[in-house]
Amino acid sequence: MSGSSSYPRPFENFGTAKLHQLTWEAEGVLRVSFKRGPVNSWVEPMWRELDAIFRHVATDTDVFAVVLSGEGRCFTAGLDLGSDSLGQVMEDAGPDVARRAFAMKRWVGEFQAAVSQMERCGKPVIAAVHNVAYGLGIDLLCAVDIRLAESTARFSVKEVDAGLAADIGTLQRLPKIVGNQSLVRELCFTAREFSAKEALDMGFLSQLVDGGRDAVLKAAIDMAKVVASKAPVALRGTKELLLHARDHTVQQGLDFTALWSASMLQSEDIPVAMAAVMQKQTPKFAKL
Amino acid sequence: MSGSSSYPRPFENFGTAKLHQLTWEAEGVLRVSFKRGPVNSWVEPMWRELDAIFRHVATDTDVFAVVLSGEGRCFTAGLDLGSDSLGQVMEDAGPDVARRAFAMKRWVGEFQAAVSQMERCGKPVIAAVHNVAYGLGIDLLCAVDIRLAESTARFSVKEVDAGLAADIGTLQRLPKIVGNQSLVRELCFTAREFSAKEALDMGFLSQLVDGGRDAVLKAAIDMAKVVASKAPVALRGTKELLLHARDHTVQQGLDFTALWSASMLQSEDIPVAMAAVMQKQTPKFAKL
Amino acid sequence: MSGSSSYPRPFENFGTAKLHQLTWEAEGVLRVSFKRGPVNSWVEPMWRELDAIFRHVATDTDVFAVVLSGEGRCFTAGLDLGSDSLGQVMEDAGPDVARRAFAMKRWVGEFQAAVSQMERCGKPVIAAVHNVAYGLGIDLLCAVDIRLAESTARFSVKEVDAGLAADIGTLQRLPKIVGNQSLVRELCFTAREFSAKEALDMGFLSQLVDGGRDAVLKAAIDMAKVVASKAPVALRGTKELLLHARDHTVQQGLDFTALWSASMLQSEDIPVAMAAVMQKQTPKFAKL
Amino acid sequence: MSGSSSYPRPFENFGTAKLHQLTWEAEGVLRVSFKRGPVNSWVEPMWRELDAIFRHVATDTDVFAVVLSGEGRCFTAGLDLGSDSLGQVMEDAGPDVARRAFAMKRWVGEFQAAVSQMERCGKPVIAAVHNVAYGLGIDLLCAVDIRLAESTARFSVKEVDAGLAADIGTLQRLPKIVGNQSLVRELCFTAREFSAKEALDMGFLSQLVDGGRDAVLKAAIDMAKVVASKAPVALRGTKELLLHARDHTVQQGLDFTALWSASMLQSEDIPVAMAAVMQKQTPKFAKL
Amino acid sequence: MSGSSSYPRPFENFGTAKLHQLTWEAEGVLRVSFKRGPVNSWVEPMWRELDAIFRHVATDTDVFAVVLSGEGRCFTAGLDLGSDSLGQVMEDAGPDVARRAFAMKRWVGEFQAAVSQMERCGKPVIAAVHNVAYGLGIDLLCAVDIRLAESTARFSVKEVDAGLAADIGTLQRLPKIVGNQSLVRELCFTAREFSAKEALDMGFLSQLVDGGRDAVLKAAIDMAKVVASKAPVALRGTKELLLHARDHTVQQGLDFTALWSASMLQSEDIPVAMAAVMQKQTPKFAKL
Amino acid sequence: MSGSSSYPRPFENFGTAKLHQLTWEAEGVLRVSFKRGPVNSWVEPMWRELDAIFRHVATDTDVFAVVLSGEGRCFTAGLDLGSDSLGQVMEDAGPDVARRAFAMKRWVGEFQAAVSQMERCGKPVIAAVHNVAYGLGIDLLCAVDIRLAESTARFSVKEVDAGLAADIGTLQRLPKIVGNQSLVRELCFTAREFSAKEALDMGFLSQLVDGGRDAVLKAAIDMAKVVASKAPVALRGTKELLLHARDHTVQQGLDFTALWSASMLQSEDIPVAMAAVMQKQTPKFAKL
Repeated sequence: MSGSSSYPRPFENFGTAKLHQLTWEAEGVLRVSFKRGPVNSWVEPMWRELDAIFRHVATDTDVFAVVLSGEGRCFTAGLDLGSDSLGQVMEDAGPDVARRAFAMKRWVGEFQAAVSQMERCGKPVIAAVHNVAYGLGIDLLCAVDIRLAESTARFSVKEVDAGLAADIGTLQRLPKIVGNQSLVRELCFTAREFSAKEALDMGFLSQLVDGGRDAVLKAAIDMAKVVASKAPVALRGTKELLLHARDHTVQQGLDFTALWSASMLQSEDIPVAMAAVMQKQTPKFAKL
Repeated sequence: MSGSSSYPRPFENFGTAKLHQLTWEAEGVLRVSFKRGPVNSWVEPMWRELDAIFRHVATDTDVFAVVLSGEGRCFTAGLDLGSDSLGQVMEDAGPDVARRAFAMKRWVGEFQAAVSQMERCGKPVIAAVHNVAYGLGIDLLCAVDIRLAESTARFSVKEVDAGLAADIGTLQRLPKIVGNQSLVRELCFTAREFSAKEALDMGFLSQLVDGGRDAVLKAAIDMAKVVASKAPVALRGTKELLLHARDHTVQQGLDFTALWSASMLQSEDIPVAMAAVMQKQTPKFAKL
Repeated sequence: MSGSSSYPRPFENFGTAKLHQLTWEAEGVLRVSFKRGPVNSWVEPMWRELDAIFRHVATDTDVFAVVLSGEGRCFTAGLDLGSDSLGQVMEDAGPDVARRAFAMKRWVGEFQAAVSQMERCGKPVIAAVHNVAYGLGIDLLCAVDIRLAESTARFSVKEVDAGLAADIGTLQRLPKIVGNQSLVRELCFTAREFSAKEALDMGFLSQLVDGGRDAVLKAAIDMAKVVASKAPVALRGTKELLLHARDHTVQQGLDFTALWSASMLQSEDIPVAMAAVMQKQTPKFAKL
Repeated sequence: MSGSSSYPRPFENFGTAKLHQLTWEAEGVLRVSFKRGPVNSWVEPMWRELDAIFRHVATDTDVFAVVLSGEGRCFTAGLDLGSDSLGQVMEDAGPDVARRAFAMKRWVGEFQAAVSQMERCGKPVIAAVHNVAYGLGIDLLCAVDIRLAESTARFSVKEVDAGLAADIGTLQRLPKIVGNQSLVRELCFTAREFSAKEALDMGFLSQLVDGGRDAVLKAAIDMAKVVASKAPVALRGTKELLLHARDHTVQQGLDFTALWSASMLQSEDIPVAMAAVMQKQTPKFAKL
Repeated sequence: MSGSSSYPRPFENFGTAKLHQLTWEAEGVLRVSFKRGPVNSWVEPMWRELDAIFRHVATDTDVFAVVLSGEGRCFTAGLDLGSDSLGQVMEDAGPDVARRAFAMKRWVGEFQAAVSQMERCGKPVIAAVHNVAYGLGIDLLCAVDIRLAESTARFSVKEVDAGLAADIGTLQRLPKIVGNQSLVRELCFTAREFSAKEALDMGFLSQLVDGGRDAVLKAAIDMAKVVASKAPVALRGTKELLLHARDHTVQQGLDFTALWSASMLQSEDIPVAMAAVMQKQTPKFAKL
Repeated sequence: MSGSSSYPRPFENFGTAKLHQLTWEAEGVLRVSFKRGPVNSWVEPMWRELDAIFRHVATDTDVFAVVLSGEGRCFTAGLDLGSDSLGQVMEDAGPDVARRAFAMKRWVGEFQAAVSQMERCGKPVIAAVHNVAYGLGIDLLCAVDIRLAESTARFSVKEVDAGLAADIGTLQRLPKIVGNQSLVRELCFTAREFSAKEALDMGFLSQLVDGGRDAVLKAAIDMAKVVASKAPVALRGTKELLLHARDHTVQQGLDFTALWSASMLQSEDIPVAMAAVMQKQTPKFAKL
């Protein structure tokens, strides 16, 4: 893929980013790509970096939409089982079961929060999956907004094979994303691989793209460009209100929305957008 | 479509209804149809009228089921952007941002409540969509029970193009209706048109009908007739318990249901229905 | 189907089981099968027995996974309308409407709790449906984890035809299982039969199996064997966390999961599982 | 008490008010007083009138604060047991238990909503109790903001003596208002009378006033004058946010508050209020 | 205290009760009293017996109200630290931390459920405390409805001194019972003893009684007699609706109450109660 | 007060703390004291520093308990109205109402989170109030565990006088802390000063101390020493479970507690604590 690390400006704050590649794909469209060869298997410094990147995205007014992808052979093969962060956490906590429990509870909580940062950053995030997304890959995909994959991609909720329940978000988010709980449970209990086609049919993906990594990346970037052209006040509102709606009753969501609209309907974006519609021109919005 | 405005009696309470057409399609089946040519674009008096109609439906024991449709070229093209109710609300509130916020919060809340009235009326509502349902059309469709469309119908969560978040219920209800959150977000962020086929596949519609407006209307009315033939105590319970279930935990829903059954299992409808089953006859229930 | 009632040992506690057949299908795989000919229609003693069986399953460390099926002509035709438990409950309560209401509220609550026992037993439950699952059959299927059916099976949310709202869990669970609320409401309001294909498309089933009862039973048992081979701490966690997630916000679910992991990540199952992965051998876990 | 029915203008909308007396006690301070001699016992037209009055209060920008009181011998003796609205509702519903249940559910819901209207009107409501507040009197008092009583007043959660659970809000609100659940349950189970002193100690009242009805009315009006002098945007926010907080978690309340402040901190009331503080003058706010 | 074990009949089902004394104190008034000398310290068989007793109370139509007390020197000194049920649970679970965690989670859950049984039994429970209620004594008292104590009684949330968080309900219920969270936290963090006077002031007790164990028992029994004389449909409703209200929003509580009233307002108890009020006679209600 | 900044070691991380004074008062007892003369009025850098301090406290294993106080003339007079952080936030956001709304929502959210940090730090926090706690002072006090004041202290929910709703937590937490909602609303609507005695009676304070600032500080430190001597696993559990309980139903809290106990009952603190009780010695626990 083309793309540039220096448009509109380099990501100087993240000059130290070592495990992700950051690229401007278009005005307002940032691509964040896992970069830990050969299969983007995850270690603690990687999710701590992801956390920092999306905290930055949240306040960077040059970013309107984000594409999430993997460099190299696949999206991600999941956790690096060779790394032993968790063993270190336990050892540091000493031998007491309760103290280890406190340490692990905190550690898992921080790991979860890093992944949830994509959900909280306020900007739409579109994932482009190629080849394989296993284990933590599913946790990550559940925390983005839109999921595209090339048509030969494969997936697995792999954790049970390592003796683990999927504890970084899959068990919470996946059932609320898709419309087949029988299949969700089958996949979580058996850890079997499922195809991009199955993922599409169950509602995990919204689009399959033929043509491999380049094609799915292009599709995601094109979609991100469309998104980035919309009124930012409307976009931010849409993401935040959808997130709120998921975790509240319909009436609570409506009340929150009415309060939201109380200020947001006073935005200058609305006359700008409406004028553009009337005049069939591209609107030009202030940053947010 | 045939149908009559005077069976079993005219809707005298709504003799003043100007922006909706009210028709009896069969015993117990009322059709409510948007009537503001050419494309049923919405203005404030229209949703205030909708509110009044469904408040009436809630207590009118002659109505067993409702079909919702649009007269003329399409179901609805959405809000009439030329109307400036909101501008008037702001102007009336004066220049203070906070006072405008209060005024808009109230106004949006009333608009939402008008649409929610279809949800609260206690009688099953079946929508028959032809041609186009854009913007507010999606908010409306999300608040009915069953959605049918003719196979060439097109849809769009259009609001973001007007600089708005969809604030009349789409962001709350659509994600809970369908089983593909990736697609929900794509549609809400991009405002792109989607086809009836996509709407069916994602779980927004339960049936496509070939043959245009007449065919989908007929399908909806036929389904409404079946619904209207069932025991009214069971129907009302089913709608209310489904609505309760959506916004509560399973256990809360079960507890509410057990309390519901405490009185409803004492209904005379049950022996009437069972006798009809045994004797393979059409049961005759009292109104409710 | 083959299978044995005596491996690894007979179910002596349930020697009195009269309305269910209990069979060991493989190590760790128990099959529970409705046995009340000709169509497995339900009477009160049957759900009381089901309750007892799954209370036992919850603490029997020999059971790793359960297959649920029906003996004879079909999965189940639903409630036995000829039985009059409810009439007896009312008569015992005397003529006062309120006292009858208390009695029925308790009775319905106990019936619901019996069905919910499958959800609470901690072990994955896989249903294999043949021919027909009507009425209570849907309530039962909604409370298991995974639903398979042979491809000619037929379903119906039948209750409304008996003058009842479905009060044993269908109205609570079905909408959260599948991804098409329009179809859910259509099926609940009309009581029409729907095919296995429709059930698959709407996300109620995760798999259709050609070849009738034997084939779907084999598929369910094979899946149960895979499930039963996984680490028990991970399996129990996965089921409990999915159940918790359904009824809480994502953040509440994540917090509960982090606390879960606090102890469960200290399990010996994890090194056992990981070593097996590395050495490509079958892991051997302690019972739970 | 003095007071006027015509300042700043008569309540022309409520010229038909027959069971309440409406008086302007000061600029911005409206007094609503039960007027159905001799003991203000309640009949259906009375709560329907209350509902209408407080719907009006919600949008009348001349009303900044409300005092609630009773004319004649006492605040209220509760429901008029001689009236038979409920009997009429049942008779109209016909003999079927389920149809009667629907009718009563609706009727109780409307009664509850009428009382809740005081909670939803957005303006602080201060009750001044003299002599006796029994039964429905407690339901009413639970739905206002501030409760004062003269020191010889007496109270009772009387419903259980009529064979009823208190179903118009006492059982929901009273436990959340006061800080002694043991006493709440004692009072609800025994229906015993409790004194103003007990009511103060348990946290139901915030102030006792010696000197009978005139004295407690004066205290309530004086407090209402203070309230009415505050910035209206702040007052409305305080009432609405307290109401929201009661029914949500702390974090949900904080999030709603932050969104609230997003528009309300842009209010012109804030510089007006601050300038008044600096200059030790009385601020003059626009109406709301 | 007097009282009889045989009125209206002996508790034959509990002829085996060894650690509680069961006495009829009056018609409809059962006293359940801890009986494990010298200080009623708790072992597992004792809470399993408590569980069984209150499951029985729930369905025994002769029981209208319950008094809870302690035989011998005090109400209860709390858990018997010399017993090692927990140690046995751990040993049975084997050495794996996760398997021990599962075993303890289940064991604590069953212990909690036994105590919660008093909350769920549907009949008002009044505790009479003498001398000392420590540790588990507070958990137990939090699960009853009304708490009385003799004026020299002493209390302590003792768990933290044993290295434990209070895990049988105190941390959940105590803060919702009383109106001083500063004091709740002080008591829970320091485990200091607090007096009956402090307990009254903070809202934990509703009444102090001078005169030692006999006096407080008499007060509790007298109150129970009053309670037992009320309409049973109203009493059961009041307890259940208060319990529901605690764990739901006000609006959810109102909705549940309206549904409750749908059947309960059809009770014959209401005309019976009203007639008794009119004729100033003692009403005679059917059992429930 | 005495106390030392260097025991057991200086707070080197907070060598830069400019607006708070940090002192070790005893082993495990840290005092955090506002230091912005003359009346500790708050500016943005002060709450950002508070946030940093309590984030540190959360993970500093030398801190077992915290005392919160004010240096100089009073606890705090509230926000510094002369500072214009908010004006700056608005100016930076540009003139658009919606962009200002986003900016303020974020700013208020960060301010709230800084105060909530005291709630989330896991260690008990005891406030010692002298002279005056106004406005933000109440928000701060609501977020600590235990509140002590010298007997002449005065309080006010001052915000409404500045045209504001109290948006940093008072409206959410105060009603859940105290047991008199009538008084809460009176104080929030009128902004009137209330005495330490009133604060005690309403349940906001748990103790009054005569003797001015020195005396209340001593009382708080003495209580902190007692707290700091308890088993750390039990203390941390108690704080976290109380926090969880506040925002969940009783049953959700019990379930969370059972899971908590699953690991925490395996702690070595329990035998250490029990042995100390038996041998009447001071236990010695490992840090946490």
